[in-house]
Amino acid sequence: MSSWPDTRLVELFGIEIPIVLAPMASSSGPPLVSAVSHAGGLGSLPCAALSIDQARDAFTKIRSQTSLPVSMNFFCHEQPAVDAQQASAWREQLRSYFDEFGVDMDAPPPASPIRSFGADYCALVEELKPAVVSFHFGLPDVSLMARLHATGAKVIASATTVAEARWLEARGCDAIVAQGFEAGGHRGSFLAGTATAQQVGTFALVPQVVDAVNVPVIAAGGVADARGIAAAFALGASGVQIGTAYLSCPESSLPANYREALRHAGDDSTVLTNVFTGRPARGIVTRVVAEIGPLAAQTQPFPLASTTLAPLRAKAESLGSNDFSPFWAGQAAALACVMPAFELTRRLASEALERIGV
Amino acid sequence: MSSWPDTRLVELFGIEIPIVLAPMASSSGPPLVSAVSHAGGLGSLPCAALSIDQARDAFTKIRSQTSLPVSMNFFCHEQPAVDAQQASAWREQLRSYFDEFGVDMDAPPPASPIRSFGADYCALVEELKPAVVSFHFGLPDVSLMARLHATGAKVIASATTVAEARWLEARGCDAIVAQGFEAGGHRGSFLAGTATAQQVGTFALVPQVVDAVNVPVIAAGGVADARGIAAAFALGASGVQIGTAYLSCPESSLPANYREALRHAGDDSTVLTNVFTGRPARGIVTRVVAEIGPLAAQTQPFPLASTTLAPLRAKAESLGSNDFSPFWAGQAAALACVMPAFELTRRLASEALERIGV
Repeated sequence: MSSWPDTRLVELFGIEIPIVLAPMASSSGPPLVSAVSHAGGLGSLPCAALSIDQARDAFTKIRSQTSLPVSMNFFCHEQPAVDAQQASAWREQLRSYFDEFGVDMDAPPPASPIRSFGADYCALVEELKPAVVSFHFGLPDVSLMARLHATGAKVIASATTVAEARWLEARGCDAIVAQGFEAGGHRGSFLAGTATAQQVGTFALVPQVVDAVNVPVIAAGGVADARGIAAAFALGASGVQIGTAYLSCPESSLPANYREALRHAGDDSTVLTNVFTGRPARGIVTRVVAEIGPLAAQTQPFPLASTTLAPLRAKAESLGSNDFSPFWAGQAAALACVMPAFELTRRLASEALERIGV
Repeated sequence: MSSWPDTRLVELFGIEIPIVLAPMASSSGPPLVSAVSHAGGLGSLPCAALSIDQARDAFTKIRSQTSLPVSMNFFCHEQPAVDAQQASAWREQLRSYFDEFGVDMDAPPPASPIRSFGADYCALVEELKPAVVSFHFGLPDVSLMARLHATGAKVIASATTVAEARWLEARGCDAIVAQGFEAGGHRGSFLAGTATAQQVGTFALVPQVVDAVNVPVIAAGGVADARGIAAAFALGASGVQIGTAYLSCPESSLPANYREALRHAGDDSTVLTNVFTGRPARGIVTRVVAEIGPLAAQTQPFPLASTTLAPLRAKAESLGSNDFSPFWAGQAAALACVMPAFELTRRLASEALERIGV
């Protein structure tokens, strides 16, 4: 299974199948990550919401299942301080929900588990030596990048525009994820600009990023079956990143309500919304998205918006309501085939190779 | 040049190359339309802003250049009556521009040349017998559809969601243009829903439409080079519709300021905006888009918003300003190769076939 029309990515990562599992906090625990890597793709462990110890434990579990290449994924956002006025303004926008669900608006919200990459995580990477380290929302500073590369890791990151791709290449990225508008979850956008200005579709983004950089490009957004993989290669990509199509695998840690929502997702069921975390991310339209969003003019900055919503979400979910549940998903959810991740990865690869006809 | 991996569209239309020229009012006059058809693709004459006599003249000019298949394109929107209150509210939003450019706000605006398809245009189709009739914003009623089909014409229309594609197939469309979010110009959306809910990217839309209907699917949005054509076929399309890449051809009637703006368009230079006509359409960000849009909460209904802007645009353009000029373009403008349309069509086809490798 080595006859891909472009082998730069499989050679760079030392993998057999040019499929990267998207790092997804709700689903990509050790069982899903190790299954994709074991099948020959690249599993990605989302570490942004894990403490150092949790990340080490998860990585160790993956290593007990497979010795093949694995990626650790981190966020590179600026971590905001809690601003009481912003928090209060955001709570005010949600006041009717606190009333309706009988949740105490004045109870202190939980702390966000989401952290930005820094020296502590870098030391963990030096300890664990994953084959690949991937970033969302930019890159760490030059000295941390040098430490990562010194471990032998390949460093990749998401670009949502040609300008971001050039920025990432100039700062040493070994490959670039061209994340199209269709992708589920957070837009990786990090250069200045509005949310609306940075919405480039996968079909237009991939070839323009390929033309702009010399490193291999990984197409992300709307890739969910063999047709998508073949199309990504036709556009000049050296591989794909697939998220939504893996969400419903039995190895995924996806909660039951999320799994059920995905079963009904069609091409137009998702929107970009900032109401869950403060940053635009694609997910299925639930009540708070329809009523406050999709793009609220003012929320708390990322990731704090989610802490204010957390008690509402917990109460609603305890009552069987998904009103405040973020069901991240891309626009090609309906193309996903539900099967174990190992089999899915192998099948996607063999069907794509057949379509590509090499 | 007949070895396309899917020949349903070329057989349906009786053409050699499965490339449809997008109908573009600013550029697709007889020279461009006839060049694409003469090369073996399908030229499309945009008739929505042409009177019966103008459309007949244009079609006759095309026929003098080529006897190969040609498409006539019409709009199927509901034509609104002018509402004085809506017009006044929209003018008020633009008041500072009328002041700045010294344009009389109280002068009666011109009538819109844009008309919806009806019995008069149907009679013209019966007279001229184009090989294909294409629609944007839905389809005409059952009796007009029957008259069109009785001429021998194939009828196609744009879908921006799977639901719209199913609707079009059920009403007798012979092929469906799956118009992704990346496409320049007006979104063809016609089923109820908001502008934001119907933004499905080409990469996700095409395979889901292919799965939903039995008729051939034409991929539109972000297709501008041979990579895009190969990718469209990989996604299951039977052909492509290309617009932006033809705008700069020497045969295009594009004004010089528009041509110049296109030269600088990058992946993230365009947005969906309703400020020019009242309906969401993708174009390059110019001043009025940045300041009033991109999606104004209230405009005049399509197409009347443009009539209020018309005197501002005329005055600004006379002063060399593009502040109010609608430069429709898709997200892949930067991939376009400027060359004559005949050569471009043949080259896109031969390069795509080479990439597809059949």
